[in-house]
Amino acid sequence: MTLILGIDPGSRITGYGVVRAGARGCEYVASGCIRTGNGALPERLQAVFRGIREVIETYGPVTVGIEQVFMARNADSALKLGQARGVAMVAAAEAGLEIAEYTATQVKQAVVGTGAADKQQVRMMVMHLLGLVQKPQIDASDALAIALCHAHTRASLIPHGLSAAKRRGGRLRL
Amino acid sequence: MTLILGIDPGSRITGYGVVRAGARGCEYVASGCIRTGNGALPERLQAVFRGIREVIETYGPVTVGIEQVFMARNADSALKLGQARGVAMVAAAEAGLEIAEYTATQVKQAVVGTGAADKQQVRMMVMHLLGLVQKPQIDASDALAIALCHAHTRASLIPHGLSAAKRRGGRLRL
Repeated sequence: MTLILGIDPGSRITGYGVVRAGARGCEYVASGCIRTGNGALPERLQAVFRGIREVIETYGPVTVGIEQVFMARNADSALKLGQARGVAMVAAAEAGLEIAEYTATQVKQAVVGTGAADKQQVRMMVMHLLGLVQKPQIDASDALAIALCHAHTRASLIPHGLSAAKRRGGRLRL
Repeated sequence: MTLILGIDPGSRITGYGVVRAGARGCEYVASGCIRTGNGALPERLQAVFRGIREVIETYGPVTVGIEQVFMARNADSALKLGQARGVAMVAAAEAGLEIAEYTATQVKQAVVGTGAADKQQVRMMVMHLLGLVQKPQIDASDALAIALCHAHTRASLIPHGLSAAKRRGGRLRL
């Protein structure tokens, strides 16, 4: 069982989602949003830094998936997004966590099966895969999708030889 | 006497400069560069975070000036710059320091007297104002210029009444 944190960074709202990945798939642990408020920029960035640190201290994930951004609308929004993303990433790195980056297309592909899915479709599949009854907030849903994508990618990276040995009851354990 | 830190954030090199601001102007304390290397992004961001934290612990500045970026070449470079800038800013904020932002134009105006100055002109004026014999590296020079701009702006924000009282030998001291 591996606790996985997904982070969807944003200049106003940073979503987070924690899932427990095991042999039978993923279970929901927690999700939510860090809202940065209307204060001065240093305070808003501290809210992201401390928020991610608190999530890590509370749930104890061992690995993190974070959205990789290729296309920002413009240089100004890219700068603002970059500031929040850098701060979220350094909070995870300072906690000693392994960090993987995924593009939005990779996340959609892993969760919905098509890179062209919209946020609502992603949320529906996240709810279905994790058996959620209540709709998570949209940034929290994106973060859960990133966590699921990371869980899926990690699982598929397990060498086939080792998996086979494990299935046959061999001595190799991952 | 106030110790002032200037930061010129960059995705590859982050410059820093520390000056001591007193009644007779500014003295040079230290300057240098934090090079982020060629590692993975989380490691590069950690280098900025830890580097700024170390500078603060070593020299003990009480206030920070950091360059505000309006025009990035494109969204991709803006994102990368934003990541480093956010991390540098949160390192200062977590150390409890007051943070002020200045545009490149404001910095050039304060140090050279014209917002159209180039980096070489800024360096010449920084060397002149601080009595430096050796040329600082260009990012370190920019950081020192930001520190000088911040010192200048802080000084000019002192209420006139108080300054006058001080000049007349009154009891008010800042």
